[in-house]
Amino acid sequence: MRVGVVAVGSELLAGIITNGNGAWLGRRFTEAGLEVSRSVAVGDDVGEIARTVGEELTRADAVVLTGGLGPTSDDRTREALAAVGGSPLRRDPGLEARLRQWYADRGRALPAQAAQQADVPEGAHVLDNPNGSAVGLRVEVAGGVVYALPGVPREMTAMVGASVLPDLLGRAGLAGASTPAWTLRTAVAGETEVSSLLAPLERELSGGGLVDVAYLASVGEVQVRLTARAGTEGTAVDAAADEARRLLGDLVYGEGQDSLDVAVHRLLAGRAATVAVAESLTGGLLGAALTDMPGSSGTFRGGVTAYATELKSALLGVDAGLLARHGPVHPEVAGQMALGARERLDATFGVATTGVAGPDTQGAPVGTVHVAVAGPDAPVVWTGRGTGGRDVVRRRCVVAALDLLRRVLSGRPPYGE
Amino acid sequence: MRVGVVAVGSELLAGIITNGNGAWLGRRFTEAGLEVSRSVAVGDDVGEIARTVGEELTRADAVVLTGGLGPTSDDRTREALAAVGGSPLRRDPGLEARLRQWYADRGRALPAQAAQQADVPEGAHVLDNPNGSAVGLRVEVAGGVVYALPGVPREMTAMVGASVLPDLLGRAGLAGASTPAWTLRTAVAGETEVSSLLAPLERELSGGGLVDVAYLASVGEVQVRLTARAGTEGTAVDAAADEARRLLGDLVYGEGQDSLDVAVHRLLAGRAATVAVAESLTGGLLGAALTDMPGSSGTFRGGVTAYATELKSALLGVDAGLLARHGPVHPEVAGQMALGARERLDATFGVATTGVAGPDTQGAPVGTVHVAVAGPDAPVVWTGRGTGGRDVVRRRCVVAALDLLRRVLSGRPPYGE
Repeated sequence: MRVGVVAVGSELLAGIITNGNGAWLGRRFTEAGLEVSRSVAVGDDVGEIARTVGEELTRADAVVLTGGLGPTSDDRTREALAAVGGSPLRRDPGLEARLRQWYADRGRALPAQAAQQADVPEGAHVLDNPNGSAVGLRVEVAGGVVYALPGVPREMTAMVGASVLPDLLGRAGLAGASTPAWTLRTAVAGETEVSSLLAPLERELSGGGLVDVAYLASVGEVQVRLTARAGTEGTAVDAAADEARRLLGDLVYGEGQDSLDVAVHRLLAGRAATVAVAESLTGGLLGAALTDMPGSSGTFRGGVTAYATELKSALLGVDAGLLARHGPVHPEVAGQMALGARERLDATFGVATTGVAGPDTQGAPVGTVHVAVAGPDAPVVWTGRGTGGRDVVRRRCVVAALDLLRRVLSGRPPYGE
Repeated sequence: MRVGVVAVGSELLAGIITNGNGAWLGRRFTEAGLEVSRSVAVGDDVGEIARTVGEELTRADAVVLTGGLGPTSDDRTREALAAVGGSPLRRDPGLEARLRQWYADRGRALPAQAAQQADVPEGAHVLDNPNGSAVGLRVEVAGGVVYALPGVPREMTAMVGASVLPDLLGRAGLAGASTPAWTLRTAVAGETEVSSLLAPLERELSGGGLVDVAYLASVGEVQVRLTARAGTEGTAVDAAADEARRLLGDLVYGEGQDSLDVAVHRLLAGRAATVAVAESLTGGLLGAALTDMPGSSGTFRGGVTAYATELKSALLGVDAGLLARHGPVHPEVAGQMALGARERLDATFGVATTGVAGPDTQGAPVGTVHVAVAGPDAPVVWTGRGTGGRDVVRRRCVVAALDLLRRVLSGRPPYGE
């Protein structure tokens, strides 16, 4: 089963927004075992939308459109669907009444132009949108089936899960089939290292070809995704995941949707511990990461960003002589910052970052970072050297700090030791 | 002049990466006065790439491809270009020698597979890539001109500026023409408010149709982009920008590429002032924003994140009785936090955030934020109420805090006053 993805909107062509809907649909369909034939962005033009649907149907069994169903004059997807199906638009009185109610619930009268959201091509099936005023449409045409969904991500994604994907899987004969897949999440190690460690598994799998291995690298993290090919037993992917876990060892911090900060909060909560941070080059990003999760106030106390060097002494108690001798970018400075955060913010663990994000250096090469964790035992410091711009160095340093805390909390040595 | 944009790579279809190259090219071409016909993502398949180029050439005068020029077996764009032009691939000995040197400079021998990067369709023009091993290609075909560029953003963007865009503008007869355009940047106000304020200008412009007005909304910010249509005199867009500035007044914090944090640093530096922050719900994001800019240590002292309520007293000197009476989400708490940051971190200005990011409330509705600025004069507090998820509330609060500081520094009242 092949699916073509079409995003409608002139703002996509002008690059005013990135085609996030296209990427989301690609991921969702691929995960569900469907193949995406192409992903196209097209402007708000009836003829061009209709022509695009026709072209994609020569490549795919189904086409999923997003965007162009709203209340304004540049929303033209309904007209294009009518053209594709060769059936006129009719105003649906039931939909119009609902629309009027939707606006009334928000204290407004239905604008004349917005009533177009009740126009449906003859014979089309209406897809419910619980989160917005624009309903979706499903049209059966000679070459296959076409779904049109609103472009608002929250509305679109809910409708894919509730109606489009079950319908597509039913047509593909995959209804009810789970797609066996595992995602293992690693931090600090690069993609080359992670894939080298998995080389024995990849060699083994290349024979049978039942499980696909994919790598998704982001700043400081690599996700390994193991997916069963269509028709493969779930046990094959389970076995491959076991082997991958064994080969990757303590590089794996979590699985599935777990992010590194969530893994850390869980470990902290498990031992009724709290954390405070002391930051330099990361400027607040580490604290921001630790407060990303709802409910993080249970384990996160707070932090001090001592950006100016003398504040490292004044606010965190770092030895002024040490700072004078070595400057602020030094492993011992990181250790004392972590201790200072732990003590002054009354937390079980203190975590610190110092380093050079560039472009100005502080006596060390750009990309040098020291991260430290101070807990009931002596502080642990880890030093990293990487490349990349200022933003990458800062974000990778946050990952290194969180991962060092994760390792200390779970009794593992620092990365590489 | 119409340009089709094609991104090559199966990872785009599977949504493993978002099509950022497509968005960047769309923005760059639109800004230069060219029209983007469609933006397509296609997999690593020779036949499909070639077919896509053919289809796009029926819509556009030129097609720009990115990706598929690298050293591995799934890089197939060269073969597809040969198929499109009907001319065989030939290995270019000069390119192969350079490639060998490129690898030698990195201490490696040229892998056999990687030598394909020296293959050029007969009659194609080679586009230099100063940042990587894969050169670009330009092929003239019956329907127009096709450019192929590497998919690595840093390499691709440099090549667009150096060779593709000058060549395209020359063909369009726009060479040397500047594209008259203005971007005005506003903070805190929503898109509806900004566009309502500009309604008189939009009405005026809709007659002549010489200048386009576009809005780009992101969390807490709206950019207004005024672009002259092809052939319009620059003075028309200059006049429109003057009128837009007048209508928007102190909502405009900057123009062009300036971000809000950069605008704030410039105002601080201009009066030799420094800033320190005191954060609650933003957890470090405000400090992170103020250290995003290289060289920010000249104006940013540091910050305290007092996430736990009692730390607001211990670290920032907020009156414990006030916290007991009103809880941490209160305008006066914000004011005292800003004062505490100013005094304890020895800065000219202190900026503070407190509020409810959700989902747990603290006696106030989710989305309530208080931001405060304390300087040589009495603290100024601004209160906002918005909707959105935890992440949106936090990021919008950072914008509100920076914008309040901008207003204080430039002698303007808080937003809405």
